[in-house]
Amino acid sequence: MTTETPAAADTDRIDALHAMLESGSVIKATRMLNALHPAEIAHLLESLPPRSRELAWGMVDDSAEGEVLLYLNDDLRDSLLQDMSSARILAAVEGLDTDDLADLLQDLPATITAEVLSSLDEQRRERLETALGYPEDSAGGLMNTDMVTVRPEVTLDVVMRYLRRFRDGLPGGTDNLIVINRDGRYLGVLYLTDLLTHDPDDSVAEVMSLDVQPMPAALDARDVANRFEQLDLISAPVVDDEGRVLGRITVDDVMDVIREEAEHQFMGQAGLSETEDMFAPVLLSARRRALWLGINLLTAFLAAWVIGRFEATIQQVVALAVLMPVVASMGGIAGTQTLTLAIRGIALGQLSGKNVRWLLGKEMAVSVINSGIWALVVAGIALAWFGNTDIALIIAAAITINLLAATFSGALLPLLLDRIGIDPALAGGVILTTVTDVVGFLAFLGLATIFLL
Amino acid sequence: MTTETPAAADTDRIDALHAMLESGSVIKATRMLNALHPAEIAHLLESLPPRSRELAWGMVDDSAEGEVLLYLNDDLRDSLLQDMSSARILAAVEGLDTDDLADLLQDLPATITAEVLSSLDEQRRERLETALGYPEDSAGGLMNTDMVTVRPEVTLDVVMRYLRRFRDGLPGGTDNLIVINRDGRYLGVLYLTDLLTHDPDDSVAEVMSLDVQPMPAALDARDVANRFEQLDLISAPVVDDEGRVLGRITVDDVMDVIREEAEHQFMGQAGLSETEDMFAPVLLSARRRALWLGINLLTAFLAAWVIGRFEATIQQVVALAVLMPVVASMGGIAGTQTLTLAIRGIALGQLSGKNVRWLLGKEMAVSVINSGIWALVVAGIALAWFGNTDIALIIAAAITINLLAATFSGALLPLLLDRIGIDPALAGGVILTTVTDVVGFLAFLGLATIFLL
Repeated sequence: MTTETPAAADTDRIDALHAMLESGSVIKATRMLNALHPAEIAHLLESLPPRSRELAWGMVDDSAEGEVLLYLNDDLRDSLLQDMSSARILAAVEGLDTDDLADLLQDLPATITAEVLSSLDEQRRERLETALGYPEDSAGGLMNTDMVTVRPEVTLDVVMRYLRRFRDGLPGGTDNLIVINRDGRYLGVLYLTDLLTHDPDDSVAEVMSLDVQPMPAALDARDVANRFEQLDLISAPVVDDEGRVLGRITVDDVMDVIREEAEHQFMGQAGLSETEDMFAPVLLSARRRALWLGINLLTAFLAAWVIGRFEATIQQVVALAVLMPVVASMGGIAGTQTLTLAIRGIALGQLSGKNVRWLLGKEMAVSVINSGIWALVVAGIALAWFGNTDIALIIAAAITINLLAATFSGALLPLLLDRIGIDPALAGGVILTTVTDVVGFLAFLGLATIFLL
Repeated sequence: MTTETPAAADTDRIDALHAMLESGSVIKATRMLNALHPAEIAHLLESLPPRSRELAWGMVDDSAEGEVLLYLNDDLRDSLLQDMSSARILAAVEGLDTDDLADLLQDLPATITAEVLSSLDEQRRERLETALGYPEDSAGGLMNTDMVTVRPEVTLDVVMRYLRRFRDGLPGGTDNLIVINRDGRYLGVLYLTDLLTHDPDDSVAEVMSLDVQPMPAALDARDVANRFEQLDLISAPVVDDEGRVLGRITVDDVMDVIREEAEHQFMGQAGLSETEDMFAPVLLSARRRALWLGINLLTAFLAAWVIGRFEATIQQVVALAVLMPVVASMGGIAGTQTLTLAIRGIALGQLSGKNVRWLLGKEMAVSVINSGIWALVVAGIALAWFGNTDIALIIAAAITINLLAATFSGALLPLLLDRIGIDPALAGGVILTTVTDVVGFLAFLGLATIFLL
């Protein structure tokens, strides 16, 4: 193979740029950087440590700055914006699309937002204010207001002549034209592929597709993404409560939503934000991490407190101290598996109040089998190690209790947290660990206190 | 708001279908089911527990079965295929696209694959064999072989007349036509939007875009996805080593890759496969989970063995048994944060051998600050609880040691595992926990043995 994989190319590029910056080859580095797509520049900046990053940011062409800012993660974008003068910010955002501008504005200080708004013409300002009226994670927040609409009664030939007037090209991601009636209400879409393959004398009404459901502006971004994925959409119209078309969502924005949602689940379990900058300033990172360590310390001390209730028991049978982490850890592992399945089920809209009972039933059945198997194995090892049948029986019982409690919590916690408005991806793991630690230590040491002393 | 969110609609739909199946309203349930898009049917089937699922699968129209199978997760698809006769499978796959058929074939028994292949015409069989020649997770495996190619020297008008011959429509996800030379080598793409907005007398060569880099067939699916995301692509051509166009990849397949890769990271941490079926048969689930519990039991017993070395110490100072889980747990939390950042960095192609040193430096600095803070806090609590300065000093030292070791392992493990071909998303967490448990217990109990006895 002579072709290079871009992952290798990506990291090679990082290393190459890094070397140029280190050796002071400013002209070479500037040329290399500005030959890239703004998204690639953003990707590179995210991969550079602070000092090189600052140097590289200074080299980016003024005309590309706005686009690069768009593609950066929130953390890094905020930190770069903070160091920019308002004149430079104004220049950077000048050429951006309305929806992109709306995204950026939400991160800018209010004084600059006002300046940007006043620098726009009437039509753009109105569109921008519409876009800013919806939360970032809704269909309205994702939508783009530049779109091409047509009326149902005209012929395809007329449409084609109309399109030829767009000398600057159609808006990005246009795979269809939106068909609206006199009141601006949504009727259907005319795919460009249909426009090109049908008889020019056919009317739009004859050729348009009715199977694309418009998205309500208030629709949650996660649900927008699920619909795009299920129906393989490239773009979809967004409508208000009365069915009037406000704009359209394109698949590139949806991919960002999918990526962010997935990262939220993955990073959230470690108490990290999905916008976490890998090379954030040390003090900023330290402060955020400290919070998470603090929360977890509370649960650790709760577990320690439970153990502390049994000091007298441990003093008499030290083997308990040796084995107790095994009980807690097995519960944690089993519970996390069920928790993970349930969190994914909720994110995909596949877990509801009704079928969670089925999930619980199935997971409990799995848990009964596995707690049986592993209780026996652990009891066997404990017996061989400490030669004490009572300890073996007690740890078998404790593991069974803890695995069942863990599975029960793992299945029900996410839906419960979701109902009361707490993010299961962020809080689920901590709460579950608290349950499995407390139940594990309590069952093991409690049973030991009753039967051994 | 009168509009319903589809997440609510999704789970409502699940509940409604469930109720119909329970009450035996077969006709109503069949009608409801077959009014849906195959992807929605697949989504519903995934959300149903086994018995209802079987009933519902029996109600799906024969003509939709192939498409529904495509959208199912691997686990469920395999289990449904196992119960289908080869005649039924042959009928189901008849109308599928080549790339979709290739995906399905990889899950079918060899005898049926042979039957399917022999039932195809020459051209389709050849295309299918090309598609089957590439691994599923490469550009070649993702690509679709049905595409429209044009030559550079013709005019747009000729292209438009040519397209009008596609009475059945253009292949799904067509946003551009691929421009090739006489030898089939890639030259550029002609966007439909450009075709529609330019002068019909212009030549393809004048209007085509050169900025879409073709993807080599061997390119890793993850890298394909990163390119699509960075460059906001809707479709991209796939070429062989000589630059000849083999097919094209569309954004809907890329969205699946992004989702699967993200789920792999999320589910992998709990030892689950991204294709895990929420309602898989109990015995199948139990067997898979048992394996993961077994692996983790090994690390738990390794930690127990370390504690066992210090039985005599614990017997004399029971407070150590009470506090030791705190030391292990703090290390686990801190290490997981760094590990998670590094795993994401690798997945995004942002972490290389060079900048991992920067990440390590930054994370160690964060860790020094946080271990300082939390060592003090824990020492304070330990002092207040047990009134023993030595224990307080020892736990402070142990927490500092464990947090630094955890951060060090968290930063370097993923890249190391990746290099030696082990999946960091799957193995990283287990190995890290082993490190933080062993180092935590060893540091705490070891220091106590030296200084307290």
